[in-house]
Amino acid sequence: DDLTAEVVGRFAGRELVLDEAMEQKIHEIIKGFAARSKMRFDPDALRAANRKQAMVPEGATALDPMGTAPGLVVPADGMVVIVLPGPPRELKGMWPAALSQPAVREVLERAEPFEAFEVRMFGLPESELARVLREIEEEADLSPLEITTCLRGGELVTDVRHRAGADEAREALLGGLEQKLGQFTYSFQGEAIETVVARLLGGRMLAVAESCTGGLLAARCTDAPGSSLWFSGGVVSYADEAKSELLGVDPGLIESKGAVSPEVADQMADGALARFGADAACAVTGIAGPDGGTDEKPVGYVCFCAKLATGEVLARDPVLPGDRGDIRQRSTMVALHLLRYLLEGREPPR
Amino acid sequence: DDLTAEVVGRFAGRELVLDEAMEQKIHEIIKGFAARSKMRFDPDALRAANRKQAMVPEGATALDPMGTAPGLVVPADGMVVIVLPGPPRELKGMWPAALSQPAVREVLERAEPFEAFEVRMFGLPESELARVLREIEEEADLSPLEITTCLRGGELVTDVRHRAGADEAREALLGGLEQKLGQFTYSFQGEAIETVVARLLGGRMLAVAESCTGGLLAARCTDAPGSSLWFSGGVVSYADEAKSELLGVDPGLIESKGAVSPEVADQMADGALARFGADAACAVTGIAGPDGGTDEKPVGYVCFCAKLATGEVLARDPVLPGDRGDIRQRSTMVALHLLRYLLEGREPPR
Repeated sequence: DDLTAEVVGRFAGRELVLDEAMEQKIHEIIKGFAARSKMRFDPDALRAANRKQAMVPEGATALDPMGTAPGLVVPADGMVVIVLPGPPRELKGMWPAALSQPAVREVLERAEPFEAFEVRMFGLPESELARVLREIEEEADLSPLEITTCLRGGELVTDVRHRAGADEAREALLGGLEQKLGQFTYSFQGEAIETVVARLLGGRMLAVAESCTGGLLAARCTDAPGSSLWFSGGVVSYADEAKSELLGVDPGLIESKGAVSPEVADQMADGALARFGADAACAVTGIAGPDGGTDEKPVGYVCFCAKLATGEVLARDPVLPGDRGDIRQRSTMVALHLLRYLLEGREPPR
Repeated sequence: DDLTAEVVGRFAGRELVLDEAMEQKIHEIIKGFAARSKMRFDPDALRAANRKQAMVPEGATALDPMGTAPGLVVPADGMVVIVLPGPPRELKGMWPAALSQPAVREVLERAEPFEAFEVRMFGLPESELARVLREIEEEADLSPLEITTCLRGGELVTDVRHRAGADEAREALLGGLEQKLGQFTYSFQGEAIETVVARLLGGRMLAVAESCTGGLLAARCTDAPGSSLWFSGGVVSYADEAKSELLGVDPGLIESKGAVSPEVADQMADGALARFGADAACAVTGIAGPDGGTDEKPVGYVCFCAKLATGEVLARDPVLPGDRGDIRQRSTMVALHLLRYLLEGREPPR
């Protein structure tokens, strides 16, 4: 970090000079941060440590910090170098200020705009999507599109970018995907699954009961702002006693069928509905490994039960591939997609 | 992915040939995967789609897939190109096989080994660590060390790498950090905070009660295998009624002090101790934003209460910086570190 301004300055043939107004701003930010976090540091030492951040190549513009580090816009011989902080929040926050700089606008006016969208699927392997994309390509010219597919947390995301005038290729791609893989596609606009679930809930409240996912399902539900409008809460019943005490699962059932069983998942969902007074619930209990697997119930065996207070149920108990982290992540996604199918009133494709 | 073998083959001046044994292996893996996940695909189409993955530059060695993609070791004129799959689990899993290849061993024997370790701190700004590192550097020659610092989920991680013979520099760095920032340092061996908490629990069981972190605290506790030995479970009490129904928080208290208050955090911790029959508990309730803040309780205001069943308590209510994601992430870390201080029987540094 300390070297960036210097290196960029050298590249642009500009000396570093101290921007005193920026130095003062950074100082105030650090002081405020130290005060809010109730920590005490020697302010002079902090000032010295942060003075370097206010060194700016001559003729460059410093952008106000979002955190403690300023950004830079450095004109360099018809090009322009934009220096932004690394943390995504600071980077995104500073982007509009960077774009509004005349030097940046001038460069951007020479560029053609890109359009981008994402198609999201669940429940099929990446090789199947690759095969279908090749099929579509045999029927239509997709060359104006830049298509990237990636497996993200168990979902298959097709990222598409194109310049203006690619409408025909775009329609061919979307039409082909819808026709051949529509049953696996849950969003053509790149929506997160929890956003889709929230919309399908339509004012109803959701509660969850988790064992092997250990809180990941609840965390995913509360990721986005406004989730308190549709998410009541969840129980992470890691210990067997917690399943009984907090969710009312019959201890005899745990004894006879095992904590990881469709029967226990069913009672966990009932418990979540009842204890939270919720309209919909989803329960997950499984063996995330690496230990705890048996021949009958191997590592990756996970029982899901999605239920509505009105009685509709959808339950599955697949064996999921991968290591502990994969199984926990994938279980979270399976739970949300099972809920989606339940709320849509249909069965998942086989 | 489809292009890698081709490009590397061209670089190494080697033609692609079909590795039939590998093709068969990939086919079996895909078949098994399809069967286990209870999905049905046309096996011939899958076979065609995956045949390409079995194309190997002549004279190269294909490494058995960890997922569905094989790796490659391609000798190229005294150098060797190792091709590994991107998913971390597959990459890590295939690494030992790659290292055991004679071509790779030959290259490695010409290399000098690296030592690496991580120092982990919590509760100070990165600029303060930078200042201290400069101070240590004025007193000792740290040039044999490659030092990188980074802020990771609210923790400050100092990553150090060095070749053999850097013992003096290494001791100077560790001694300096311990002397100047020892109170902020919780691991000189790169341990995760939950590992440290688990060790400090020493057989006692932990339960958590979360609101704004929405399950992230429980998820973090259950990240590592074996967490069922020390983690009972948690309640994500997002709705106020859930705080009362599942944790026994007095509804009148929520009414008078607000759901985000030190008093409610205290009762949430009591509830977690009681309902899970746990020995230790940590409660978090706060305003993650972007909405819901007031002058008195702004976005980022979070109340923490760590408690032992034997009565010891540690509570804090800072205002944390950042956006919703930052605040949730940081709150998770503050909760775990507060627990650590409680279990260590000392106060966090100010």
